[in-house]
Amino acid sequence: MAYTLVLLRHGESEWNAKNLFTGWVDVPLSAKGREEAAAGGKLLTDAGILPDVVHTSLLRRAITTAFLALDAADRHWIPVKRNWRLNERHYGALQGKDKKQTLAEFGEEQFMLWRRSYATPPPPIAADDEFSQAGDPRYADLGADRPSTECLKDVVERFIPYWESDVVPDLKAGKTVLLAAHGNSLRALVKHLDGISDEDIAGLNIPTGIPLVYELDDDFKPLVKGGRYLDPDAAAAAVAAVANQGR
Amino acid sequence: MAYTLVLLRHGESEWNAKNLFTGWVDVPLSAKGREEAAAGGKLLTDAGILPDVVHTSLLRRAITTAFLALDAADRHWIPVKRNWRLNERHYGALQGKDKKQTLAEFGEEQFMLWRRSYATPPPPIAADDEFSQAGDPRYADLGADRPSTECLKDVVERFIPYWESDVVPDLKAGKTVLLAAHGNSLRALVKHLDGISDEDIAGLNIPTGIPLVYELDDDFKPLVKGGRYLDPDAAAAAVAAVANQGR
Repeated sequence: MAYTLVLLRHGESEWNAKNLFTGWVDVPLSAKGREEAAAGGKLLTDAGILPDVVHTSLLRRAITTAFLALDAADRHWIPVKRNWRLNERHYGALQGKDKKQTLAEFGEEQFMLWRRSYATPPPPIAADDEFSQAGDPRYADLGADRPSTECLKDVVERFIPYWESDVVPDLKAGKTVLLAAHGNSLRALVKHLDGISDEDIAGLNIPTGIPLVYELDDDFKPLVKGGRYLDPDAAAAAVAAVANQGR
Repeated sequence: MAYTLVLLRHGESEWNAKNLFTGWVDVPLSAKGREEAAAGGKLLTDAGILPDVVHTSLLRRAITTAFLALDAADRHWIPVKRNWRLNERHYGALQGKDKKQTLAEFGEEQFMLWRRSYATPPPPIAADDEFSQAGDPRYADLGADRPSTECLKDVVERFIPYWESDVVPDLKAGKTVLLAAHGNSLRALVKHLDGISDEDIAGLNIPTGIPLVYELDDDFKPLVKGGRYLDPDAAAAAVAAVANQGR
């Protein structure tokens, strides 16, 4: 028997639209992002893929995406689990900064290192920065686990333990699992699932709002590497657009 | 130390607006109902009451109310628990019927017996009725527990076990608990909390969208009987309007 996992990156947020680094800043979806989320739910319905449980990050754009997609798919009533380990990569001192300005200020090499290198985090954000989460009650229990910056490697290291402890057991129970999360937390998981190298993961983009379905074998490895998007044409077009962010 | 419990009846649904018996039929909020939900969240923020966990029914109007209220209160990220035991009273064969027509067809006495008597359920709904939940996947695991009609006594008998098993432990853990539910499931709980008699509960209405806050003692009994509404004037006006439904 195959296990069914659905990954859904949140739709466009207000800061995606403004081309700002977001990270853990809790910005809402844009109107377009809300439409994308509902369209994602419609794609699930059309494919006959009915989530039995949803896991979300603690960020509004993923929570709202899950709500709108499941409402559109008539699965609004399924159990919900939320965890900070699904959060977007913490973007450190870049949070709140304009991507184009950052590119101009620091140059292509440094910009791409922060955006795409596996193990180089941006500088940490100061606790008193307006875009810091140092005083945010939702992370009060994390203590030393609360990051002030992250590279993709850090995201892998905090997400995969949750994958093992909380998501795999749901799959083992025969449930179709929906993960409503973020570009980099989903890249972290896809790297793990597909066995992508530290170098090659730099080239992987996951489009917003289009469910990515993985059928997994008994070892929770993909039957088809890369899974399948429920709208492959839209996914290909969106990936190309994401790659051009900040240009 | 006092425990804090917040009850929130969902805002106006499309069928409230049309004056139809709803019960377990899963209708969405009206535009007014969505506004009520967000306003309820604003009232929580203004009162400085921050839910740590939310329990909802399996019905869209309560789920959406919880989502919109918590989003407005910046508490969208708290844990969510959903259970059918918080559902509205199942209205049996009356589900989908016009309240005025039902009043005209069956007369004042029978109408009020079905609406307000403690122990007289309406006739059961047929499994093949378009408004039956016999084939609904969210209730597939209930087996013989799935009702085909309910009186308020039935609601008390299925809700209070959940109160004891799932809500009280959250309160004991020191959490501020939000229950986003329905007119009759909340009446069932208030009856239990305030020790209201089977006769007197008929006169109790709970308005939509206005948080009702109970501070509870160590025995989970109210410090102040009846709790307090966060907008008492609006609550009083709304209670009067609810009492006139079907007239």
